Amino acid sequence: MNLDKYKPENLKRISKGMINIHPIQRGGILTQDARKILLDWADGYSTCDICLEGRVDLLKNPPVDDFKRDLAEFLKMDDIRFTAGARHAKFVVMKAYAKDGNVIVLDSLAHYTSYIAAELNNLRVYEVPNTGYPEFKINPENYAEVFEKVKEETGKYPTLALLTHVDYRYGNVADVKEVGKICRDYNIPLILNSAFGAGLMEVRGKDLLIDFLICSGHKTWSATAPIGILATNYDYVDVVFKKSEIRGNWSGRAFTKKEIAFFGCSPVYGLPLVTLMASFPTVVKRVKKWDEEIKKARWFVREMEKIEGIRLLGERPKKHTLLHFESPTFHMIAKKHKKRGYFLYHELKKRGIIGVQPGMTKSFKVNVYGLSWKELKTVVDAFKDIAEKYGIGVED
Amino acid sequence: MNLDKYKPENLKRISKGMINIHPIQRGGILTQDARKILLDWADGYSTCDICLEGRVDLLKNPPVDDFKRDLAEFLKMDDIRFTAGARHAKFVVMKAYAKDGNVIVLDSLAHYTSYIAAELNNLRVYEVPNTGYPEFKINPENYAEVFEKVKEETGKYPTLALLTHVDYRYGNVADVKEVGKICRDYNIPLILNSAFGAGLMEVRGKDLLIDFLICSGHKTWSATAPIGILATNYDYVDVVFKKSEIRGNWSGRAFTKKEIAFFGCSPVYGLPLVTLMASFPTVVKRVKKWDEEIKKARWFVREMEKIEGIRLLGERPKKHTLLHFESPTFHMIAKKHKKRGYFLYHELKKRGIIGVQPGMTKSFKVNVYGLSWKELKTVVDAFKDIAEKYGIGVED
Repeated sequence: MNLDKYKPENLKRISKGMINIHPIQRGGILTQDARKILLDWADGYSTCDICLEGRVDLLKNPPVDDFKRDLAEFLKMDDIRFTAGARHAKFVVMKAYAKDGNVIVLDSLAHYTSYIAAELNNLRVYEVPNTGYPEFKINPENYAEVFEKVKEETGKYPTLALLTHVDYRYGNVADVKEVGKICRDYNIPLILNSAFGAGLMEVRGKDLLIDFLICSGHKTWSATAPIGILATNYDYVDVVFKKSEIRGNWSGRAFTKKEIAFFGCSPVYGLPLVTLMASFPTVVKRVKKWDEEIKKARWFVREMEKIEGIRLLGERPKKHTLLHFESPTFHMIAKKHKKRGYFLYHELKKRGIIGVQPGMTKSFKVNVYGLSWKELKTVVDAFKDIAEKYGIGVED
Repeated sequence: MNLDKYKPENLKRISKGMINIHPIQRGGILTQDARKILLDWADGYSTCDICLEGRVDLLKNPPVDDFKRDLAEFLKMDDIRFTAGARHAKFVVMKAYAKDGNVIVLDSLAHYTSYIAAELNNLRVYEVPNTGYPEFKINPENYAEVFEKVKEETGKYPTLALLTHVDYRYGNVADVKEVGKICRDYNIPLILNSAFGAGLMEVRGKDLLIDFLICSGHKTWSATAPIGILATNYDYVDVVFKKSEIRGNWSGRAFTKKEIAFFGCSPVYGLPLVTLMASFPTVVKRVKKWDEEIKKARWFVREMEKIEGIRLLGERPKKHTLLHFESPTFHMIAKKHKKRGYFLYHELKKRGIIGVQPGMTKSFKVNVYGLSWKELKTVVDAFKDIAEKYGIGVED
């Protein structure tokens, strides 16, 4: 067993010092304030020096209990729990509705973890179609259609619905409120997976007529992984934050304060939760500047589309910073290049840019959130430079 | 909403600069090597700059895939996955055996998360008794007795058994191999929850005749929370690391590489996993020095028992650094003190020591793992000093 590879000098992050445009990285970069608390809170169970109630969400020092209230106010929801990522939050909600034969309706752009959470709880999945190439949009009214289809095919309406606020494939922003209205009409609880939304964009849960709001701290709240936020309204608190009822048959031991689907006490004790708190004041401010981010994203799209063959996929005009481009011209180059599809990755890396999936050239995704205009220009220039190097046309 | 409380200068850890003897803190203190990589890896999804297979455990850079193999060798098991803490690992194993009416047998000293994982998977729990006050020991042969009882009462033998390697109430160390033998005789898979064991003590899974070995990175491997290790043998890989079979009814989307009970890709992408790697070379070395830790623990017990009324609970001689003392004399003081049970906490804090549960005086738990002889003496002197201050006798 050679242990040298785990030495600090060998555990270097490949993106260090580069512009990282990986779709999942931009919103997770720690704030300066979060960086300041790292050394104090990075040890194991750091949040748990004084735990009086056996639940991390009830801690007074650090002020997690207060933080829950502030977060609830910020998200305009009633109550909050923390989870091991948005994926765990989805599991928690669906667990409360797990029963053989029950159906969840979700949009066909949903993150894979939404499907897996359903599978883990034996829920049958019905998908709401999208409009296909090139926009791949979800039409809210299709939710009603699929609800009716479920009724027809299974004899009852679905138990749950899930909508992906910002999908990870095209960065489309869903019309949440319209879906919310339909779900209210049918009396079907609606989960909003806002893993790419809240934390960057302002999200006011009750205004959107949603019942569960799920956020990803490491994806878009500048927190250390893993940390998810699960917000709900009073109607659902007892159902979803269900407490333990088990009892030892010999000892009589019971754990009546522990919440089952969070494994008793959610495994977020420690740094992930504290970085989420430390970044929170910055997040509260930055969501107000979302328009500026969209302006940058749209400029980026215009510049990228000056490269022959490059074309944005997903809705127009663009409403998010996660961008998916089809790139048949790069793909043509890849077919003849000795590095094959990896040439684009390597060419970008040489220019100090990382985050495009190695091997991908037919289409590729980037996220420009939080890049300065200067960095944005560096990225555009790099793509144009690579195009020109391989004889792909670039408009002036 | 007052956001000042989240400013770095207000997010101070209460234990900073103090000797922390909290039972769950000692084994989670980061190594110097782990501290060195914090700034590089603390951002959100830091491990995922280059993900080719969509699973964090298969990453080549950082070398997670290699790490799995090295860990398996170190623990003498066949295969490894990472989880959001030991609690999530227990959920994963039990999920594979979740069926109404199925029974799990566990020791009556088990951590609450073992009971909750069973509850979450609708497993019925049967407890193996312990010997009660003052040693609270688990006799291996009682596993066979309880297996027979389950057969008698439910018509079939239990589906699973769980043993707590080191219990969190008394720090007793279980006779794993004897329980392993019994489980092999009955052909019942055995989970060893080694959350307080592996990472401090040497654990060689196959020699112990266990089928699942569960470790807590933040509890005893000097890693940032949350990170658990689930190790198993080839017989169980396909059962427990079960892959997704769900398929979108409209899109046909499928996620056949994703492992269901890990939420598709385990939510440990990021700092927790990298600190576990960075601390690993130190952990490999330190388990060889366990005898020295035991020597310190036994010395500490002898010194503490010089205080009138203070008496170790749990097995003798002591085989672990987690110590539980009954303290009727301190409890007498608490009854008359204006701070009531909190006096002990405050008196220790004044002396630079933290980690005894505020309000506890009838009995209290500490962990002396990794304390230097000098720190150990500081702690002993503090307890003696407090005793003398309140007129409790202290032997020379």
